[in-house]
Amino acid sequence: MSQDLRLHYAPDNASLVIRLALLEMGVPFDAVLVDRKARAQDSTAYRALNPNGLIPVLETPQGPLFETAAILLWLVETFDQLKPADAERGAFLKWLFFASNTLHADLRILFYAEKYIDASQAETLRAGIRPRLRQHLGLLDAIAQQSPSWFSADKPSVMTFYVACMMRWMALYPARSDRSWYNISDTPHLQRILQALETRPAVRAAVEAEGLGATPFTSPIYANPPEGSAQ
Amino acid sequence: MSQDLRLHYAPDNASLVIRLALLEMGVPFDAVLVDRKARAQDSTAYRALNPNGLIPVLETPQGPLFETAAILLWLVETFDQLKPADAERGAFLKWLFFASNTLHADLRILFYAEKYIDASQAETLRAGIRPRLRQHLGLLDAIAQQSPSWFSADKPSVMTFYVACMMRWMALYPARSDRSWYNISDTPHLQRILQALETRPAVRAAVEAEGLGATPFTSPIYANPPEGSAQ
Repeated sequence: MSQDLRLHYAPDNASLVIRLALLEMGVPFDAVLVDRKARAQDSTAYRALNPNGLIPVLETPQGPLFETAAILLWLVETFDQLKPADAERGAFLKWLFFASNTLHADLRILFYAEKYIDASQAETLRAGIRPRLRQHLGLLDAIAQQSPSWFSADKPSVMTFYVACMMRWMALYPARSDRSWYNISDTPHLQRILQALETRPAVRAAVEAEGLGATPFTSPIYANPPEGSAQ
Repeated sequence: MSQDLRLHYAPDNASLVIRLALLEMGVPFDAVLVDRKARAQDSTAYRALNPNGLIPVLETPQGPLFETAAILLWLVETFDQLKPADAERGAFLKWLFFASNTLHADLRILFYAEKYIDASQAETLRAGIRPRLRQHLGLLDAIAQQSPSWFSADKPSVMTFYVACMMRWMALYPARSDRSWYNISDTPHLQRILQALETRPAVRAAVEAEGLGATPFTSPIYANPPEGSAQ
């Protein structure tokens, strides 16, 4: 299968979520570096895989997939792992879409505000986004407290990896902008999930591959990757 | 089953996508008006169904579902209709998530810019969003030209109803903001899909229920609903 799945990645980019899910599933894959320094994500070859020029792409027997959450769902369905109990499929889907179209979408605005508004107003826009993100995290913390099959400290699902990475990025990015608004201890149930994740061999392997440090979710440092660059 | 599925809706809100899918599938449901004039979506009772206070909610035997695209996917899986060919599941998922977390997420910014930035900067933000929306529509038009099983004029899927409704809203909202940027003829393959949809009995039934006029997708007018209000 390793020839069949090719993950186009950059260190500490959204591809990290997919790497973690694949490692946790034990599914072999080839990792192909996208050189962000050379803006390889804008190349004709890469745009043929993802016309949006975004990372990740996962090449599969069904063709190139993109959109982090779509790939996660496809992996769940294809390999039958890291998934919710059958009766919780609906709840899992609604919160997976929330994570993708609300939390992740707002994070993109925080990180790349200049793609949404004139650069002179970017910090103003960021100031509007931060309270939204705090609210989204509060909702997810309440779900984590309920500890459903797909969002608990006992056993990861694709959702736990997705949220854990987004919380990592909130702690770190944008590097030259206010990050004091984010404090993991404000969301203790999420914090417990992230602590549990850091003990897993899949996380250790991803940390090594992308240079993420010993506590990549609960107390992250900037990536120091063996190849490529995060931005 | 009609006692089992309850769609909480407001006319011409995102609940319209779910109504259309249910009608096209022939699945009975009860429609429960959410009175936006009274801000019923912020009530304790409604927030117990969706803590985000957004419309729609679909109450199901698996509990209350929200997030338009999550509900669509759950309906596809539960009733085995309006879905892609098996080999196109991955492509369907990636474009469904794109529709949800990029097109719909950007539309929310256009419609509710004041939720993202100080009101004095709302029009500046809208000005940054419009070229993004045009680009997203261009990508979807290219997919429509390829006419995959889940996005063609021959046969609707949940995706076609979702995109058709979003194009309707782009033509109409926000009512007091520039809408000249949107022109359906710029995306002729999408236009053909929307024209085909308008001939379907499910669309006629939704038009009647929510007062949407004869050409709700290709040449929409503001809703004149028999009950409730769109905003």
